[in-house]
Order: sequence, then structure tokens, then C-alpha cells
Amino acid sequence: MDSGASGEDDLIARHFAPLAGPAALGLKDDTALLRPTPGHDLVATADALVAGVHFFADDPAGSIARKALGVNLSDLAAKGARPVGFLLTLALPQGTDEDWLASFAEGLGLAASDSACPLMGGDTVSTPGPLTLSITALGEVPAGRFVPRTGAQAGDVLLVSGTIGDGALGLRQRLGREAPLPPEMAEAAHLIDRYLHPRPRLGLAEALRSQAHAAMDVSDGLVGDCAKMLHASGVGGVLDVAAVPLSSAARLAIARDTGLREVALTGGDDYEILCAAPPEAVPALQAMAAEAGIPLTVIGRVEAQVGLRCRDGEAEVTFARGSFSHF
Amino acid sequence: MDSGASGEDDLIARHFAPLAGPAALGLKDDTALLRPTPGHDLVATADALVAGVHFFADDPAGSIARKALGVNLSDLAAKGARPVGFLLTLALPQGTDEDWLASFAEGLGLAASDSACPLMGGDTVSTPGPLTLSITALGEVPAGRFVPRTGAQAGDVLLVSGTIGDGALGLRQRLGREAPLPPEMAEAAHLIDRYLHPRPRLGLAEALRSQAHAAMDVSDGLVGDCAKMLHASGVGGVLDVAAVPLSSAARLAIARDTGLREVALTGGDDYEILCAAPPEAVPALQAMAAEAGIPLTVIGRVEAQVGLRCRDGEAEVTFARGSFSHF
Repeated sequence: MDSGASGEDDLIARHFAPLAGPAALGLKDDTALLRPTPGHDLVATADALVAGVHFFADDPAGSIARKALGVNLSDLAAKGARPVGFLLTLALPQGTDEDWLASFAEGLGLAASDSACPLMGGDTVSTPGPLTLSITALGEVPAGRFVPRTGAQAGDVLLVSGTIGDGALGLRQRLGREAPLPPEMAEAAHLIDRYLHPRPRLGLAEALRSQAHAAMDVSDGLVGDCAKMLHASGVGGVLDVAAVPLSSAARLAIARDTGLREVALTGGDDYEILCAAPPEAVPALQAMAAEAGIPLTVIGRVEAQVGLRCRDGEAEVTFARGSFSHF
Repeated sequence: MDSGASGEDDLIARHFAPLAGPAALGLKDDTALLRPTPGHDLVATADALVAGVHFFADDPAGSIARKALGVNLSDLAAKGARPVGFLLTLALPQGTDEDWLASFAEGLGLAASDSACPLMGGDTVSTPGPLTLSITALGEVPAGRFVPRTGAQAGDVLLVSGTIGDGALGLRQRLGREAPLPPEMAEAAHLIDRYLHPRPRLGLAEALRSQAHAAMDVSDGLVGDCAKMLHASGVGGVLDVAAVPLSSAARLAIARDTGLREVALTGGDDYEILCAAPPEAVPALQAMAAEAGIPLTVIGRVEAQVGLRCRDGEAEVTFARGSFSHF
């Protein structure tokens, strides 16, 4: 980590050095140094998170760290990439105490070690504004095996990993007003946990590389992201909302208020993987996913005619908002 | 660039797509894809800049962009690396108008094309706080030829590129109070220009790779950064402050107020290159630098005994603050 003052240097060294991989050069240089694996392409992604916009300033510091790294790893997973490391820039509000920084580094370290994605470098600065983080994650795919967003083909099947809507419902639960579930329920805690702690689907990378035509991570709402992937691929398709996998917590919430189904389908913060694969590849794709412990559910199909249509059984359905925007 | 809303998508596409290189995949994916040059190592660096801390919110948008990219390119240059591309995360205050964004993108595009370092991807988000930018720049060096900060050896000569102190004096000039020079002087404009627009010394990369034992960019003040490099290398040395190259504007300012010499020597924002090279390599190093149009001046020597001593001719000098801190 680059930093200007020696007091800050000490702080950074103490808390972040334990997270640093060999590429970080002991955080003693201003740069990271990495030897790319021969025969591999490099995948790079960057996401910024701002307190009060992407997370709550009073979220646990470790959760903020896990989320910041997780949303980037989710992008790598969707491209079939294996993480190799990340750079972090951290704009800290004046008066951020060392306990906060220690908890942040601890959460970040756990997420980094879970995903074999060590810290490579970065920068720590002071800000008069809210806590702002930016992470750039680097990954590798065997040359030519990157899974694009733009490869969906008419006839492909659409699949999504895990369950959809927990993040968006978890955000409502976290906000407290109009909470989907009574706060004392275990399912309420599940929703909040899903909102706070994305689980990047790195276990799907190999299955996607070998079986999928196109993939992206679902971060801005399933319906909108699905429309985005099909649009980027120059095709259209049908999404069967009745087939979209929901957790028991989400089902419970929707049973109490059917309006929450739209929240689940169009809200953000899922960090699941949406992909398009030819029908003949689906059994192998699902088997590989199952082996990685990740359910992968068929939710629709790709068609030549542009535009995404949503169906609930026989009925066509539309949504007021297709996707989530921070603006 | 990843972004949530389609209005924002359009905005980003319109202004940033012209800056994007092939690795950006048309900014249609959430990630960049890059094929590393065989036989090369990857160098990565990240710096964050916050309005009101690292630049003035009312600096020209194009200048802010050039500085944000420039400070990262300066790090790559110091390591002997050739830039390959960068990722940008941009946290925009609510109400940032499109003219600002257009000017920002224009300045960024100029800096990117000057340095053959195209935009590869990133993220744009909204912030209730000040404008905050984070850039991760990627570069390449032939395998094993990275120039570390930690390689200075007793007996080496210390050299610095260009002129020192213009950035720190330019900041004072920009602030207006206690301006080093009358604002109507051309030299005053030179200082402000140097503060606003770092000139990353990419032309030195090959010379450093082939001739230097250690290098770093001077961003936090020459004296402090020199002490840092020597400390990281486990050695010490002598810096002859009388030998430090100054621009005519800086000399003029110091002639008017000798206290400004300390500002020049310990202030930040130089973005010149400090390096250590064996005495026998100095002629070749300076010749290669001259060929690139970059002066490289001998300013001291490395010694085995730890600690940096500063001399002015025969007299030992000390400075109240060795380096610049944003904290």
C-alpha cells in the first residue's frame, strides 16, 4: 500500500501486511509484481463502494470488507476466471479508529483467503466524505476461454445459480421499515446475511468455461441483468419467473406480501451467476455445478427476437423497474 | 464500465467508450480481458484521489483526470514498466453535470493516448461526498526486469529526473495565500501547471530497467521518499541538497523566500523518478535519459550505514518534516 506518512505506513503495515501475497512485495513498493501463468489471459474488474450508497456506514467493518471483495470476485467467477489477487484503495473518513481498521482487515483477510485472492497493493487516503472503497481484482482464464456477456445464442437455455432476491429482501430487512419478516425469525437473519455477505460463485468458473456461451453476475436485479445480457448478445428471450429459485426465507417473505416477488426479481445484490448454455450442455453444466455444491436452475430460454419477455406460467408479466440503480 | 442504470450506461458509453482499448471489450462486459505479452511480468499499481485532499474540486475536470492517471503512470515508469491499460472507478457527487464529465473524459483520453495506456474498464457510482477517483494501472516489464525500491546498494549513486519542488510550490501558488511568485509571472503559471499536470517519466523505463538497482517515483517529497527508498533497501546515504535540480521558476521563488527551499525539497507532487545506480552505469543511464529528453541529475550517494543525511556543501542540514502526508 502506498501511503504518505510514516504513522500511516505503520498502521497499514500492521493491519494489511498479513493479507499480502508474494505479488505485494511486502507492501514495500508502490506496485505489485505478478508473473502471469503462461497460456492464460488476464481478467480485470473494478468496483467502487460508498458508505450510505452501497452499504451502511455502521455495517460491521469486516462485512464491508467482505462485500467489497466479494462483488469483484463475483465478476471474475462469471467470466470463468480464477482470482490471482486484488488492489484496494481505501478513502477513510477522518477519525476512523484503529479498531475499525483491524476489523476491516480481518474480514478482508478471511474473504481473501477463502477465495485464494491475496492483497497485492493499493493506497490509503483520507477523505472528508464517507468511507469509499475501490477494489480491482485480477484473475486468469486459460487463453481464449473467457466467458463473455455477449455470447448468448438463440436456442440456448438460461440458468441461474443459487437463489435470487435474498439480497434485495435483506436490504429491506436491514432498513427495518416494512421489513419483510419479523426480525426475531431465523429467516430474517438469513436475508440480512445474504445482503451483507455476497458469496462469489468461484466454484462455477470451470463449469462456465467449459459449457456456457455467455455469463454475467447478477448484481443489479435478475430481470434487468438478464435483459442486459441478451441485449449485449444481440438476442432476446423468455424468463419464466415461476422457475426462478427462491430461498425458503424469500418464499416466506413473498407469502406474507406478494408485492415482494417483484423486489426479489428486480432488486440488486444477488451476486449469483446468470448464464446461457446450449441445451445439450445443460446436464454437464448442472452436474459440474452440483459437484461444486452450487445449484444451477433453468429459468428460461434465449430466442432470436430481441427483447426479454417475462412469463409466469402462461401469463406474460411486466415489472415497473427492471433493474436497480444507485443513481 | 459497470453501471446500474441505463441512463448512466448511456452517459458512460458516450464519454468513456472513445477511450477504451480492445481489452475493454467495448465496455459491454463487467471485466477487461488482456493477453499478457509472453516473457513479461505484470506490474499493477493503484492510487486514489479525493477532491479537497489531492486536488481542488474546482480544478479543471481535464486536469483532475490527467493527474489521476499521471500519478499511476509515474509508479509504472519508476518500475521500468510499459503501461498496458487502466481501470477507473469514479464516485461522482450528485448533480455532477455532463459538461464536467465530458471535460473529464477528454482530459483522460489525452493522457491515455499520450502514454499508450487505454481505458480497460471500471465503475461509476454516486457519492454524497466529494468526487473520489481510484485508478489501477497495469504495465508490463520483461520477466525479471522489474526495478524494485529495495535494491539500492552501498556505493550506488542517487539520481533524480527533471526538477524538484515545482509541484509543492505550485500548490502554494494555486492556494493564493503566501504565493511564492506574483501571479502575473509566467513562472507562476509554470509552477501551477506542474502541480496540476504530472508528467509521468515513462521515457525513463528502459534506462531504469537496464541500468538502475532501485527506483521509485517522488510523490511525497524528495527527502522523505529518498529516506524511504534507502530504508527499504536496508542502507543509508547522503543527499546533497545543493545538487538537487530546480526549475528557473523554483529558483526564482527560493530567491524571494529562502524558506521555500525546504518546501521544494520536502513537498509532494513532483512525480519525478529517484533512482540508485552503480557509478559505472551512470554515463549510460544519463545518456539513455537524455535520448528520451529527460534530464537525470546526480544528487547523492548510497552508503552502508543506515539513515539519510542531507548536506548543503559541507554543512549537514535537517528538515522539520521529511515528507508530505495527507493525514
